[in-house]
Amino acid sequence: MSLLMAELKKCKEKIDDFLLNNVLKRREPTLLFDAASHLIAAGGKRLRPFIAMKCCELVGGDEDLVLPFAAAIEVLHNFTLIHDDIFDQSDKRRGTTTVHKIWGVPHAILAGDFLFAKVFDIIAECSLRSKAYELGVKVLNCLSKATSAICYGQVYDMNVKETEIMSKERYYRTIGLKTASLYKASAEIGGIVGGASDTQLNLLRDYGWNMGIAFQMRDDILGLIGDEATLKKPVGDDIREGKWTLPLIYTMKKAAENERGIIRNVVGNSKASRKDVLKVVELIKKHNGIEYTKKEATKFIERAKKCLLSFPDNKARQVLLELLNFIIVREY
Amino acid sequence: MSLLMAELKKCKEKIDDFLLNNVLKRREPTLLFDAASHLIAAGGKRLRPFIAMKCCELVGGDEDLVLPFAAAIEVLHNFTLIHDDIFDQSDKRRGTTTVHKIWGVPHAILAGDFLFAKVFDIIAECSLRSKAYELGVKVLNCLSKATSAICYGQVYDMNVKETEIMSKERYYRTIGLKTASLYKASAEIGGIVGGASDTQLNLLRDYGWNMGIAFQMRDDILGLIGDEATLKKPVGDDIREGKWTLPLIYTMKKAAENERGIIRNVVGNSKASRKDVLKVVELIKKHNGIEYTKKEATKFIERAKKCLLSFPDNKARQVLLELLNFIIVREY
Repeated sequence: MSLLMAELKKCKEKIDDFLLNNVLKRREPTLLFDAASHLIAAGGKRLRPFIAMKCCELVGGDEDLVLPFAAAIEVLHNFTLIHDDIFDQSDKRRGTTTVHKIWGVPHAILAGDFLFAKVFDIIAECSLRSKAYELGVKVLNCLSKATSAICYGQVYDMNVKETEIMSKERYYRTIGLKTASLYKASAEIGGIVGGASDTQLNLLRDYGWNMGIAFQMRDDILGLIGDEATLKKPVGDDIREGKWTLPLIYTMKKAAENERGIIRNVVGNSKASRKDVLKVVELIKKHNGIEYTKKEATKFIERAKKCLLSFPDNKARQVLLELLNFIIVREY
Repeated sequence: MSLLMAELKKCKEKIDDFLLNNVLKRREPTLLFDAASHLIAAGGKRLRPFIAMKCCELVGGDEDLVLPFAAAIEVLHNFTLIHDDIFDQSDKRRGTTTVHKIWGVPHAILAGDFLFAKVFDIIAECSLRSKAYELGVKVLNCLSKATSAICYGQVYDMNVKETEIMSKERYYRTIGLKTASLYKASAEIGGIVGGASDTQLNLLRDYGWNMGIAFQMRDDILGLIGDEATLKKPVGDDIREGKWTLPLIYTMKKAAENERGIIRNVVGNSKASRKDVLKVVELIKKHNGIEYTKKEATKFIERAKKCLLSFPDNKARQVLLELLNFIIVREY
C-alpha cells in the first residue's frame, strides 16, 4: 500500500471513530439519528478531514488537535449531500439509497438540518473543553462562510438547468463555490489549528481551492466514463439531471449543429434512456471533451502543487503531494 | 402605548436595522437573497431577540452588546420557519405566501440552509470583530444545542400525525423541544453576554423555557379561535395539519365516543372543510379545552415570573414581567 493509501486509511479510522462516538451514537429520536447517519455510515473517502489533518501537520501542528474540527467538516459535507440529493432527485449515493428516498423529503431536510447543527455543536464543545475559544471562532468563521458559498453555488447550479447552456465562466464560478470552497476551508482550518502564519494560510487556501476545482473536474469525468461498481453510483446521472459539466460544455462548443441537437434533447431529460445517455458520452469522447477536462484539471493540480512546494519538506507535504496525483487519476 | 409596546417597537427597529445591513442586503445570487429574506421582511414580533436583549439588561449588561447575537437568534428562528412550512405544507405565514409556495421546495430548503449558515456567520463575525471569543463560543454552544432540540421536537411532531393521538406527556416534550428551547436559549444568551452568574443563568434558562411553553399554548389557542386578519394566517390549520395541540388533547379525553369520532375524521385531513374544522372547534369549546389550556399556560407564566422576581428590580425586569402578562393574552 502506498504511503497515501495507508495515511488515508488511518485518517478514515480516526474520523469514523470520532463520528461514531459523537454524532452517530443512536438515541431518541432514533428515526432522526438513523436518517442523519445513513450516508456517513455508508462510507466515503473522508478526503476533506484528511486535508485538514495533513495541512495541520504540514505547518507543524498536531493532527490530533484538529481531529474534532476535521470531523465537523465531514459532517458538514454530509449535510450538503443529503440536501443535494433532494435537489437533484438522486436515488443512489455511496452504493446505498439516498436519505429522502428512504425516509421521505421532510425527514431528509430535517436530517440535514440536524447534521448542520451538529457541525457547530462539535466546534462549540471542542472549543469549550480545551478553552480554545479563538480557534473555535476562527474555525466557525471558515465553515459558516464555506456553507454560504456552497449555497450560492447550489443556486447557480439549480438555475441553469433547462434554461441555458452553462458558460465555462459560470461553470468555474459554480464549482468554485459548490465544491472548491469546502476544500479551501478544510486546508485553511488545518492551518489555523496548526498555527500557520498569514502567508501560509493564503497558500493553504490557494492549495485547497485549486485542488477542489480539479477534484470536481475528475468527478465530472467519472460521472461520464467511470465504472458504476467502483463509483457506487449510476454513470450518466449528471447528464439526466441537466448538469452542464466541463466535458459537456466543451463538447457543445466543438460539436456540429445536429450533434448539439442530440445533446440538448438528452441533457436534463430525466427520462432519457441509457442508450441516449451513452450517445452523448460518445459525442463527448469524439470531441475530446474528456481529454480537454483532464488537461484543465492538471493545470489546477499544478497550481495546488506549487502552493504545497512553498512549505518545507516533511511527511505531510509528501502525502499531500501524493494526494494531488491521486485526485486526477482516481477511479472512485 | 405601554412601556412593553414601546420597548418592543424599539427593539424591533434595532434588530430589523441590523438584519437589513447584515443579512438581507440583496446581492448575487439575488434569488437566494430574495427567498431567504422573504419571511424576515414580512414582519414578526422579534420576541426572541427582545428577550435576549432584555435579559442582558436584566443582569446589568448593555443590550447593544447582545444585538448581533439577538439578531442571529431571529435568523435562526426564520430558518426553522421556512423548513417547517415545507413540512406542514403551509401556504400562508405572516400574511404572506410561504417561501416554498413562491420559490419551490428546493429553493426553500436552500434559503433555510443559507439563513442557518448566516446565524453562525453573524456569531463568528461579531466575536472576531470584538475579540469576544469566549462569548462567541458560548453563544454558539447555546444555539447549536437549541437547534438540535428543535430538530428532535420536529421529529416528534411529524411522526405523531395520523398514527396516534398525542399524549399530554408527548405534547409537553414536543413543544419543549420545538418551541421552548429557543426561548430558553434566547434568555440564556442575554445572560451570557450580560455577564450573568451561574445561578442567574439557571434562572434565565428556567424563565425562558417556562415562557416558551406558555407561548406555544397561547399559539395553540390562537390557532383555534384567533382572528385571521390579526393573526395573518388561517385559523384551523393546526387541525387540518394533524397537530395535536393541548386544547385538542384535553377535549379528546373529555369527549363522548361519537364526538371523538368526529374529531378523528377531521384532524390531519388536509381536505377538511371550514365547517368540519369549526365543528371541532365547537367541541373543544364545549369541553372547556380552551379554558383548560389557558389555565395551564398561566401555571407556566407564574413559574417564569418567579424566576424573574429573583432578580433585583430594574426597568428590564419590569418590561419582562409585562411581557409575561402579554404572552397569554396576546391576540397575534
